[in-house]
Amino acid sequence: MKTSLGAKTLLYPAPVMVVGTYNEQGQANVMTAAWGGIACSRPPCISISLRSATASHAYIVSRKAFTISLPSRAYAAQADYIGLVSGHNHNKFEELGLTPVASTLVDAPYVNEFPLVLECRLVAIHELGLHTQFIGEVMDVKVDKMLVTNKRRVNIEQLDPILFMPDSGLYYGLGTLIGEAFSIGKELVQHKDKA
Amino acid sequence: MKTSLGAKTLLYPAPVMVVGTYNEQGQANVMTAAWGGIACSRPPCISISLRSATASHAYIVSRKAFTISLPSRAYAAQADYIGLVSGHNHNKFEELGLTPVASTLVDAPYVNEFPLVLECRLVAIHELGLHTQFIGEVMDVKVDKMLVTNKRRVNIEQLDPILFMPDSGLYYGLGTLIGEAFSIGKELVQHKDKA
Repeated sequence: MKTSLGAKTLLYPAPVMVVGTYNEQGQANVMTAAWGGIACSRPPCISISLRSATASHAYIVSRKAFTISLPSRAYAAQADYIGLVSGHNHNKFEELGLTPVASTLVDAPYVNEFPLVLECRLVAIHELGLHTQFIGEVMDVKVDKMLVTNKRRVNIEQLDPILFMPDSGLYYGLGTLIGEAFSIGKELVQHKDKA
Repeated sequence: MKTSLGAKTLLYPAPVMVVGTYNEQGQANVMTAAWGGIACSRPPCISISLRSATASHAYIVSRKAFTISLPSRAYAAQADYIGLVSGHNHNKFEELGLTPVASTLVDAPYVNEFPLVLECRLVAIHELGLHTQFIGEVMDVKVDKMLVTNKRRVNIEQLDPILFMPDSGLYYGLGTLIGEAFSIGKELVQHKDKA
């Protein structure tokens, strides 16, 4: 039996994305966003949605670029801090002792201490209401070498990403492996084919 | 030290969303999507990105509506199956013994057995390349009564959502609680204010 919770954005989980930009003076800024996701496979695009009141909103429009740095669980407090204070009056890199690295592909910095980084070129802006959706084409992904498997994939458990739960406002870690996609459902397909 | 993995959509984690639609004959269909996320808070909007080759793509364009049903971990094989076969030649509800429920708010069905449902009205279509991004305004969220806390929030651990890991193609479960958002970073703020 289901009950109504009203019109809300209850989609679980949301990623914890630290968005890197340059301000008007070329100073590196970061903010934490959870509204967004993968938007297209070819060209590879992701979306992030920001309120126009944020400092980063204007910086992305101005530089037509941003990065996404994914913090591991060890950096959860830092990621939360980055979402608590504004780039309008805080130098968050300096305050947290984090290292901005200039992307050589797009006009934006990323967080050296965070294990995985997407360097994005702004390709579209969609005004949706309170939030503006930015579509970024991923020009490259950079990841800590020790997290790359021998199949050139990301070791997810070592990446140890943070998950955000909308409405309840809780961060969770990654749990246990359930199985392989495009695989664990095959038994059901074969079963049906036999029937 | 970071290494380049090339231009890919490596954003972790992605949600596992089962998209409900009606086909031309009014038969309920579902497909599994992981490209998407929350897009706007007011009005509450989510985005999903589908290839035009999918059956659901045409159904969403035609009916201007879709639902998102979030499977719990217990339904991981079913969710995978729903992503393996096409609505063009499969009645997935029937094959899996799942129950379509007609939304009374939008022209689309949802999966009764899955614990959380978003009923969405199509408000925008963005052609991004291989994928089309659909923006859906969330008209209501329906959730299994037993999952609602006394604060009218979703009990995330009981919801037990599935997480998809792009590229590596693995499903994971939810891990342990890290802490409260807009809270665990406060200690760092106070520390800075004192300094």
